[in-house]
Amino acid sequence: MLRILNAAHHAPSVGFSQPWNFILIKDRLIRQKVKESFLRERERSISMLDGNEKRQKQYVSLKLEGILESAVNICVTYDPTRFGPFVLGRSSIEETGVYSVACAIQNLWLASRAEEVGVGWVSILANKDLEKILSIPPHVKPVAYLCLGYVSEFAGKPDLERAGWLPRMDLASVVCYEQWGVNHSEPWSALSAAMKKMNEDKREDNI
Amino acid sequence: MLRILNAAHHAPSVGFSQPWNFILIKDRLIRQKVKESFLRERERSISMLDGNEKRQKQYVSLKLEGILESAVNICVTYDPTRFGPFVLGRSSIEETGVYSVACAIQNLWLASRAEEVGVGWVSILANKDLEKILSIPPHVKPVAYLCLGYVSEFAGKPDLERAGWLPRMDLASVVCYEQWGVNHSEPWSALSAAMKKMNEDKREDNI
Repeated sequence: MLRILNAAHHAPSVGFSQPWNFILIKDRLIRQKVKESFLRERERSISMLDGNEKRQKQYVSLKLEGILESAVNICVTYDPTRFGPFVLGRSSIEETGVYSVACAIQNLWLASRAEEVGVGWVSILANKDLEKILSIPPHVKPVAYLCLGYVSEFAGKPDLERAGWLPRMDLASVVCYEQWGVNHSEPWSALSAAMKKMNEDKREDNI
Repeated sequence: MLRILNAAHHAPSVGFSQPWNFILIKDRLIRQKVKESFLRERERSISMLDGNEKRQKQYVSLKLEGILESAVNICVTYDPTRFGPFVLGRSSIEETGVYSVACAIQNLWLASRAEEVGVGWVSILANKDLEKILSIPPHVKPVAYLCLGYVSEFAGKPDLERAGWLPRMDLASVVCYEQWGVNHSEPWSALSAAMKKMNEDKREDNI
């Protein structure tokens, strides 16, 4: 836990503001309340899929949280008042504060993986429930609710890809050159070719 | 570039929505326009420090971008319409979409470091300028503007820490237990002790 949290805390942050907090949770009663928030939000999501029976059935079959089964839950929060009000580099794009917290979460995720610890991010929750359950003050924003623990296996692909929920996009389809929507550019032809080759290699692997 | 972009593209994303795009920029004229946006926003920041001469002087002395000097610029964007409108896990907390993009940026950052490529995130920019310069459509949001390139050295500490702009916070000061603001908890005493020891060791290293 020390190494995992320390990796998160060493993420880059706008103006070196380090605007994160980590609430570590083992308490059963607290987790039970968070689980109830999940169950309510899950019901809402299911009803949003009314009229798309196939998708709804698939949604219901998915494992989307491990709040009670995991060893530890972590709520990661963003404090915009940290070292404020003037935070270097945050005056033009205020959202860079909360983006810094997301960078810390990705560090936490990768450091966990290096320790053979699995991480799941539960986003089917109401932030207003988290604020109440965890006594988060009004100026602080919950960013993520994570479940951590040793797992029986690390899958080679994301669950939703394996389940056929959505496909992995080709890298080339999310890259463009010099301007939005420009897919060909002479100075970038070597990279284009490398992406194409990687794609073909992957398709051969899958056959 | 292929490995760096591929690492970014393999970040976790809410509902496996992969809502990112990467605009790769080498063109000199485009960069010049972005630099002009930086210079305007920098002036705004400097004037916000009127009345705090020491801080203002320090701000002016800092190197805050490498738009023209770096080998490549990358604008990373968020497309909320990707695979939408129903994105699994995004119905309760809509911001998880843009957080996914920030996770991809942190992956890009770490993958670059592994390749000995330096990355700087320029946040002293106006998004409306980026949208215009890069022809980003109205439904897409710029998230980060990055400068990538080989560097003469990787510093042991962040620039702003070395410059004395802000100190690194103790890890223990951003961790709490079971609830916001709770700094002591019996089930977490081993972790508390480990954080305290790490802190003392660090202080000794610094002496």
